[in-house]
Amino acid sequence: MRAEIIAVGTEILLGQIVNTNATFLSKELANLGIEVYYQSVVGDNRDRLKGQLEIAEKRSDLIVLCGGLGPTEDDLTKQVVAEHVGESLIQDPLGYEKLIDYGKKQNRALTENNFLQTLILTNSQALQNPTGLAVGIFYTAEESQTTYLLLPGPPKELQPMMVQSVRPILKQVYQESSQLYSRVLRFYGIGESRLVTELSDLIATQVNPTIAPYAKENEVTLRLTVKTTSEELAGPLLDDLETKIQTRVGNYFYGYGEDNSLVKVVVALLEEKGKRVTAAESLTAGAFQRSLGELSGVSSVFPGGFVTYSAQTKIDFLQIDYTLIEEFGTVSQECVEAMAIQSRKLAQTDYALAFTGVAGPDELEGQAVGSFWIGLASNEGVSSHFYQVAGNRETIQNRAVMAGFELLRRELIK
Amino acid sequence: MRAEIIAVGTEILLGQIVNTNATFLSKELANLGIEVYYQSVVGDNRDRLKGQLEIAEKRSDLIVLCGGLGPTEDDLTKQVVAEHVGESLIQDPLGYEKLIDYGKKQNRALTENNFLQTLILTNSQALQNPTGLAVGIFYTAEESQTTYLLLPGPPKELQPMMVQSVRPILKQVYQESSQLYSRVLRFYGIGESRLVTELSDLIATQVNPTIAPYAKENEVTLRLTVKTTSEELAGPLLDDLETKIQTRVGNYFYGYGEDNSLVKVVVALLEEKGKRVTAAESLTAGAFQRSLGELSGVSSVFPGGFVTYSAQTKIDFLQIDYTLIEEFGTVSQECVEAMAIQSRKLAQTDYALAFTGVAGPDELEGQAVGSFWIGLASNEGVSSHFYQVAGNRETIQNRAVMAGFELLRRELIK
Repeated sequence: MRAEIIAVGTEILLGQIVNTNATFLSKELANLGIEVYYQSVVGDNRDRLKGQLEIAEKRSDLIVLCGGLGPTEDDLTKQVVAEHVGESLIQDPLGYEKLIDYGKKQNRALTENNFLQTLILTNSQALQNPTGLAVGIFYTAEESQTTYLLLPGPPKELQPMMVQSVRPILKQVYQESSQLYSRVLRFYGIGESRLVTELSDLIATQVNPTIAPYAKENEVTLRLTVKTTSEELAGPLLDDLETKIQTRVGNYFYGYGEDNSLVKVVVALLEEKGKRVTAAESLTAGAFQRSLGELSGVSSVFPGGFVTYSAQTKIDFLQIDYTLIEEFGTVSQECVEAMAIQSRKLAQTDYALAFTGVAGPDELEGQAVGSFWIGLASNEGVSSHFYQVAGNRETIQNRAVMAGFELLRRELIK
Repeated sequence: MRAEIIAVGTEILLGQIVNTNATFLSKELANLGIEVYYQSVVGDNRDRLKGQLEIAEKRSDLIVLCGGLGPTEDDLTKQVVAEHVGESLIQDPLGYEKLIDYGKKQNRALTENNFLQTLILTNSQALQNPTGLAVGIFYTAEESQTTYLLLPGPPKELQPMMVQSVRPILKQVYQESSQLYSRVLRFYGIGESRLVTELSDLIATQVNPTIAPYAKENEVTLRLTVKTTSEELAGPLLDDLETKIQTRVGNYFYGYGEDNSLVKVVVALLEEKGKRVTAAESLTAGAFQRSLGELSGVSSVFPGGFVTYSAQTKIDFLQIDYTLIEEFGTVSQECVEAMAIQSRKLAQTDYALAFTGVAGPDELEGQAVGSFWIGLASNEGVSSHFYQVAGNRETIQNRAVMAGFELLRRELIK
């Protein structure tokens, strides 16, 4: 089972966007036990795409194409593949209906080229697009048995389509007697190199299950993968390896699963315990609350909060005494504790997080870029924590947000 | 002059690392006026790399390889290229000396395989590595005149080598009298398919400059690119085409440049006019303020604001009369206008944006997912605007944030 990935898009060849789709798809296929032997990129050009298909069909059983399913003249992946395999293009009824519906809802006249997006090959399987309009295609050529998988280019459309529609099909089609079973462990507060060092002998000697570390933004995950014939056999093998890992680095472990995050774990803990949180954000200017707001149903644990970016709004919104700010400054233990206490009182919640510090690029109140305070108020009082991190504005703000969630998580599980 | 890039490395095919080298190299080559027609990735495998070279030499004049120059058994790019072009491998004297020196300094015995890194092809030009030990290679085959450029895989080594050694060589070898000059126009409030339809005849007939549309999240950009001999000649050609475009779709145009955004344009306008803005966010839970907070120096135009996710915080934080909410609900024109007026008053700013609506996944107050109100308060009073958009929670929130910035931009330029 040899696969290759062809990304279609001149903007990749111009270096304007990074080909993260290839990375995502490679990972997905690897998880399904399908080996990717080549990745390639061609521009929005009929002849060169055709040439690439000719090369690919000689060497691969599964050809995954992404990009070029949109409504513009540049989008020609479907047309070229149809011609290459000798099929016609027809409208997918479901996709067509969704597009018509979309036009009505947006109160917008649909142009003729809109309907290019909902074309599929004859004798193919349509892949619905949960987050967009372009329909994907799964097609196996009768004679050569080469499979063509056509996916949309925007990662926001490609990823859900891959997870929801393609994974089940590939599992079914390429099912082997042994399958891969994975478990993802998530760690916060430990860097990838230290995690790998702590586990180096395990990583080097483990064959089945294997351990694959991935550094993500502000966290590290470990994917344990075992190849075996049933989920019942996989479980104990994964349990055994996980126990060894947890013994060494369990203090940094916060949760399971690819589709998980520190924020989700914290919100689940709040829901479970029936507690609510608010925030007063200076340094992070709403980023902590925005992370909460991304999750649906968060209103039961988060009623709202404050963005107090200036000294004056700390005084006006939070009723902090201006003499406190005059005496200690806004980037201070005293200020962050007052922010946490006051926001908790005003929002009538169980917990309040407060953030104040220097996101940069310039120093503030004589304090270096990357230094910040986080305060946590609860019914037991208030605690405050000082951090000094390196990085640019975005990195510093994101690290502060994550540190805030970690403080709250530790409070919730203590 | 056709170029292609081949990255060598199994870790890319497994999705463990993103192929950012291809992006960097594509951008570098584009800036030199060299067109990249293909990117590809092969694993650390002799036969497949050889096969890829055979494909590449048929279609490209310049083949850029990156990765596989290191000291391990997996590193075989030099060996395969040497075999392919019929040259031998010899030590590069400068690189050899540097390696010996490094061994002494590190007080470390060098193993035989260390010296694989400093091999070059006979009849090639060595490219010194300012940040590592592997020597790069620039080689042109005498008969076919195909050029092979071999670069190390780690971006920290590849990038300085490209900038310091390769750029000057390529400029000299491939210097053309004409270069590429680009201008990026940014549009908000018009979809890609409609923009392309409005400009279809221009896009189809324009050869120099060319027009390339790109759909980004919530906006569309057009890149106009002209190939000519000087910036002085490029300017009027781009101006002329831009005028034609602005005549048709100028109403949706908001700014220039690759590294620009609606938020940046709004913040620049606020700074220019010495005005300040606040926000009261329900639907968007801090996302509008978070977008402002991402920009450094925003404190002069944004003192802070409110996240009023629940009805109670709208009453408590913003002092909105609870009878108003009882009568009209939180997703209402009355509520959004009150939120805007009250937050503007409390934050003492020139403008206030308020957001309330249904982000989903469930309906709220009998209103459909994706329906929302935005209010804009200023010294002239308050206006409110109803929207109904399709998409998931994240899409709806992001579209609301952008719509808010657009309302403010129009207010600031009116």
